[in-house]
Amino acid sequence: MQAKELDALLARFTQVTTGKTPNPRVKAIVDRIVRDLFVTMNEFDVTPDEFWTACNYLTELGKNNEAGLLAPGLGFEHFLDLLVEERESAAGLNENGTPRTIEGPLYVVGAPVHQGNARIDDGLDTEAEPLFMSGVVRDASGKPIPHAVVEVWHANSKGNYSIFDSSQTPFNNRGTIQTGADGRYSFQSIMPSGYACPPGSSTLQLLDLLGRHGARPAHIHFFVSAPGYRKLTTQINIKGDPLIDDDFAFATRDGLVPDVRRIDDPAAMEARGVTRPFAEIAFDFRLVEARDGLPTDVVDRARVSA
Amino acid sequence: MQAKELDALLARFTQVTTGKTPNPRVKAIVDRIVRDLFVTMNEFDVTPDEFWTACNYLTELGKNNEAGLLAPGLGFEHFLDLLVEERESAAGLNENGTPRTIEGPLYVVGAPVHQGNARIDDGLDTEAEPLFMSGVVRDASGKPIPHAVVEVWHANSKGNYSIFDSSQTPFNNRGTIQTGADGRYSFQSIMPSGYACPPGSSTLQLLDLLGRHGARPAHIHFFVSAPGYRKLTTQINIKGDPLIDDDFAFATRDGLVPDVRRIDDPAAMEARGVTRPFAEIAFDFRLVEARDGLPTDVVDRARVSA
Repeated sequence: MQAKELDALLARFTQVTTGKTPNPRVKAIVDRIVRDLFVTMNEFDVTPDEFWTACNYLTELGKNNEAGLLAPGLGFEHFLDLLVEERESAAGLNENGTPRTIEGPLYVVGAPVHQGNARIDDGLDTEAEPLFMSGVVRDASGKPIPHAVVEVWHANSKGNYSIFDSSQTPFNNRGTIQTGADGRYSFQSIMPSGYACPPGSSTLQLLDLLGRHGARPAHIHFFVSAPGYRKLTTQINIKGDPLIDDDFAFATRDGLVPDVRRIDDPAAMEARGVTRPFAEIAFDFRLVEARDGLPTDVVDRARVSA
Repeated sequence: MQAKELDALLARFTQVTTGKTPNPRVKAIVDRIVRDLFVTMNEFDVTPDEFWTACNYLTELGKNNEAGLLAPGLGFEHFLDLLVEERESAAGLNENGTPRTIEGPLYVVGAPVHQGNARIDDGLDTEAEPLFMSGVVRDASGKPIPHAVVEVWHANSKGNYSIFDSSQTPFNNRGTIQTGADGRYSFQSIMPSGYACPPGSSTLQLLDLLGRHGARPAHIHFFVSAPGYRKLTTQINIKGDPLIDDDFAFATRDGLVPDVRRIDDPAAMEARGVTRPFAEIAFDFRLVEARDGLPTDVVDRARVSA
């Protein structure tokens, strides 16, 4: 189809037919996306079978609740981080803040709340390496922020997340830690393994066709928030994971791969109350101040509540 | 974000990471769609909230099984018809064939099969105008095609389709008619009203934001097929419907709006076995011959079976 004909068609398809005023931003963006798709279908001579296969795929994706898994897999969620950072940098923020990275789809609202220190694993994963992580929530100048909240969630040693994996106790490897006046948080858990898109998932089906895997390096998720500061959504990666530079979700970032200290000294094990060698990670979060005129830091997306 | 930076990002996101060969067509089309979406997000400075709102929308669309309703609503299904016709015309077909138009999402596999003539309404819609429709399935030269199959489905007088509307008897206003050697088909039914997207549907939600309605003029759907000919997917519109040139699904086409004869002669009513004035529509279908190298006429899409 020639460009002129395509333009005429699109002009007809996007006409207002109700006399009601459309939402101008939604209309501008949807019109643009539809136009681009028409141009692509025209250029690739997309057949009805191909088109309906794509529709069936999107339907399955929706039914399986996987939009939040495919979006990072195709790079959209990391791209959103970069777009928000551009806006923050333009506003003079960010230079000393902890880098943001993707939330992913596996946060669950309602994890147990603790003061300062917490044990967030259920103690049943006896094969796993015990992990002790701690640090301070600071502002951009390095000053501790009193009464910050650190929400943490991560996979177990099989790479699976509680609530989504019903074989685990609810809220295993999930917790919310309120810091005191010193901004300190600490928690005991177990060392996570990397998550991988479930076999048979819609996301993995498409990644397969694209010649891509659906696996992530081991990582730990955080929301860090405090009044007057922008809520930080981030992760740390576990140093040494072979996928650290090959994350299917593109979430690895400089400054988010802290050292891991491995300790097998019996006295230290006893002091920590564990019977196996364990790992320690120290990591401080730095929040930047809240500002008007920036994309909201409290993102409204579909999340599981339990 | 500058174009160069965007290109580098996309190059990274679309890298093959498995060593397995991707499906080259899927990869080329998906890479293109992803690139276009990144460019749009960058240009419109799409926020995370907006992005996740769109993802939530697509998830709801999938859960509600509405991809097949939104696709015609945004013009995609009519556009596919035009793309297929281009290919058929390039192959020298089509000049004398009945125009194709969209299938829509409301066909149901498994309607009752009849020989030559059928009554396809259940007789319970006593307010509706009786309709008698008949004609001949012909080839492009006008010669009757023996042993063709005419599948017909349409809404009731409230604009609703059986199976999807559980208040109707199953397969009301649906039927499959096998023609004899003369290619003749005829059926008795009732005059349909125009369908409208259900209130609260995902499709209507988006159309509202675009300043568009989700209503169709009254119409009757057909699949017409015979060995050696391309399967025809089409509709006729009921002449005089005020939405005939304002179909939210863009399916109205020249050559698909036959005359309606209104008859209130008591003798004719008695001959037809009805007690009310009725309507008659005469319509011949013309099929074009099957050819290799064209997009398949038997489109594989998700359909309801009952």
